[in-house]
Amino acid sequence: MQPTISNTGEGMREGAEYLRGVYEGLGCDVAEIRETPGWPVVYGEYDAGAERTLIIYMMYDCMPADEPGWTVSPFEGELVHDHQIGDYPPFRTVLMARGAINSKGPLMAFLNTVSSIRGSGNEPPVNLILLAEGEEEQASRHLPWFLRRHRERLQEADAMFFPMGGQTVDGSVTICPGTKGIAYFEVECSGEHWGRGPRKFGIHGSNKVVVDSPVWRLVHALGTMTSPDGNTCLVDGWYENVTPPTEEENSILDELVESFDLSPIKQALHVDEFAYPEDDKRELLRRYYCEPSGLNIDGIYGGYTGEGSKTVLPHKATAKMDVRFVPDQTSEEFLPKLRAHLIRHGFPDIKVTQLTSGEWARTSVKSPLWQAIRQTYEGFNLEPLTVVRNIGYGPFSLFCHEPLNLHGGFAWGMLGHGTRAHSPNEYFVIEGNEKVHGLTDCEKGFATILYNYARS
Amino acid sequence: MQPTISNTGEGMREGAEYLRGVYEGLGCDVAEIRETPGWPVVYGEYDAGAERTLIIYMMYDCMPADEPGWTVSPFEGELVHDHQIGDYPPFRTVLMARGAINSKGPLMAFLNTVSSIRGSGNEPPVNLILLAEGEEEQASRHLPWFLRRHRERLQEADAMFFPMGGQTVDGSVTICPGTKGIAYFEVECSGEHWGRGPRKFGIHGSNKVVVDSPVWRLVHALGTMTSPDGNTCLVDGWYENVTPPTEEENSILDELVESFDLSPIKQALHVDEFAYPEDDKRELLRRYYCEPSGLNIDGIYGGYTGEGSKTVLPHKATAKMDVRFVPDQTSEEFLPKLRAHLIRHGFPDIKVTQLTSGEWARTSVKSPLWQAIRQTYEGFNLEPLTVVRNIGYGPFSLFCHEPLNLHGGFAWGMLGHGTRAHSPNEYFVIEGNEKVHGLTDCEKGFATILYNYARS
Repeated sequence: MQPTISNTGEGMREGAEYLRGVYEGLGCDVAEIRETPGWPVVYGEYDAGAERTLIIYMMYDCMPADEPGWTVSPFEGELVHDHQIGDYPPFRTVLMARGAINSKGPLMAFLNTVSSIRGSGNEPPVNLILLAEGEEEQASRHLPWFLRRHRERLQEADAMFFPMGGQTVDGSVTICPGTKGIAYFEVECSGEHWGRGPRKFGIHGSNKVVVDSPVWRLVHALGTMTSPDGNTCLVDGWYENVTPPTEEENSILDELVESFDLSPIKQALHVDEFAYPEDDKRELLRRYYCEPSGLNIDGIYGGYTGEGSKTVLPHKATAKMDVRFVPDQTSEEFLPKLRAHLIRHGFPDIKVTQLTSGEWARTSVKSPLWQAIRQTYEGFNLEPLTVVRNIGYGPFSLFCHEPLNLHGGFAWGMLGHGTRAHSPNEYFVIEGNEKVHGLTDCEKGFATILYNYARS
Repeated sequence: MQPTISNTGEGMREGAEYLRGVYEGLGCDVAEIRETPGWPVVYGEYDAGAERTLIIYMMYDCMPADEPGWTVSPFEGELVHDHQIGDYPPFRTVLMARGAINSKGPLMAFLNTVSSIRGSGNEPPVNLILLAEGEEEQASRHLPWFLRRHRERLQEADAMFFPMGGQTVDGSVTICPGTKGIAYFEVECSGEHWGRGPRKFGIHGSNKVVVDSPVWRLVHALGTMTSPDGNTCLVDGWYENVTPPTEEENSILDELVESFDLSPIKQALHVDEFAYPEDDKRELLRRYYCEPSGLNIDGIYGGYTGEGSKTVLPHKATAKMDVRFVPDQTSEEFLPKLRAHLIRHGFPDIKVTQLTSGEWARTSVKSPLWQAIRQTYEGFNLEPLTVVRNIGYGPFSLFCHEPLNLHGGFAWGMLGHGTRAHSPNEYFVIEGNEKVHGLTDCEKGFATILYNYARS
């Protein structure tokens, strides 16, 4: 598996060049590495002479694999047989690797599909604009720039399709017509900014007896930001601009109360109990889909983090934090609130930087592309569950809202399964079981979606 | 510079073997690597046929050099010329390296001294037991074991001398007849122990909306442990068993108010302001020498600590913490108090482990060895400042209290200077300036201490 870690740059150029070669092999009219101020977009066009044009949005970057717990070498990858998750029937074969599901497996499956259609002497039923960005894991920081720069051509597309999503561990599929937005912060407390404690470097721990500690200061500052259970953000105005679910969303929630099984999520994540009671299932689901995520600590670090007992009074400490937000909040409203909170609580020196931003996206399940996906699932005897939105982030708002405003919106879907994105032992199913489709059906599914959409 | 990092094991065996070779070169009667359940002691005996016997306590291990800010390669080391600290006159030459002052520089200077005495056709004026441990930076975890095992022979010594301490950046020297004790803890909050949040690994950050966070739990638990400024430990009974200064200590404090200059400490540590007002200098000094250090956070970590913005809801978070304590506290009393505090505040699942322990030590400045050191300083026209105790830890209680109870206690001293132990750009002065002696005088000073002691 080619590493393509946008955070560190490892393998990015090689990965982009490899993908451009794949486009070329498909017979694309355009197969280019197009530069941005960050990592380039691998851009391709295939003119099939069809009526409709789809932008196929993809990503070629992935997360680092620094987290412990991998049982395979994450960038060599391995085919693992009889892989079982929780109590579910095992998968005959999975590809276990960083990026397997997020999202090199689905990307290659989609491109294989196009290759197969052409290999059997046919043309794809829709024209394709292949757009693979290298900064999805950096909240697509230069994708808006790229889309605005190429807006005229890109707006000739009818809709955007992301070959992703797919079946969960129990084989179920979803129609998921939106995403949450994200704002990601770095919060740093340092002696340098504070003017107290060690200014330049960590000093011998014994000095704590008369020297202030920036780590303690960060701990106490963070403590003011949430309720004691860590689940409600106490920053003023954090939940304002959250609007009630739409009529379509409310009816989706009503259906979900009947049909949505929480246990596959819990098993896959190894979470015994949610933060909110399951007996009020509608309220839990409403929170899950329609509330911002409070304030997550993605990482915290300061001082000595190695083995054993080095004593030091550190000169700074840092927390990485994020919020996943919902309509009608925007990615710009959180940073000023966080800063105001720190000032109000006596921590004006603590530095907050917003690292990444991305807006929520919302389309209707009634769009032709979503209908084509639904029809495809049903053709494979799968009854899709319609959900409100993805709780994660994808840069879909850029296609269905500003700057492209594609009239057909966006959709995503896939037969097949994988999970543990950002976690150890990420996998993508190659040969499934009775419920979960393998790679062959995944590719058949992509072809069917394209044909259903062209016909609709 | 041979790395000898006891925390990781890097270079420990090679370092021990090198030192044993040095002992052999001195003509020691015994020059052995003696095993312990941890890193070995490098043990030597030199029988000079003298009346008195000194244990020369040394350490051959050092800290890791993971901290940022080094301007030289910490284990290659470099001679740096015209090295200036704050506003003080520059040193003509320093050796900059990890372990330069803490404490390979002083160790080699002492052994060179013995070698020089013999090279000039004389015998050392005292018999020497050379005892270099490899676990000082692990709070001497197996030194008690070693001392008990060899107690009979070691108790034949009159006193223990540690070739260390020395001049501060402005050239002043101290008589420092004691140390504080240390207790070092690892505090871990995990989904596994808590039964809430992710149990096995960090999960996608978007799940925070309905999943509890062990990192937030650690933050809120830590928040209960100190006053908002991080300087007073709120754990019940943390300061009990602190006894008032002795009469000798009180008179030392009275003298220090007149003679002790705080600004060299502040400049060396890059600390602008202490946590307590300087206008009540006696109270500040009493705190510094006679109070436990509250509770220091040496390190904190959980989740993603790399570049950029990986989103994850971590399954655990850890803090490393220590307290430096004073008579009559003991290293065993803090762990149960910390555990009781966590239980009382609703965090019974948070795991606390004591990694290292060491007791305080107290001798009298009137002992023959301290008098010999005072006389040596005065002979070099230095007026030593007598302080209450070192605020750091050294395993000296093992020599002056249990298990050896040497009747002459322990002492330490040195001409020459170095600092930034555990910090970047640690150094040891090779050629000094008008106030600070270089390596040649450092060795002369050691010789003089030995002769003064033999004569006393």
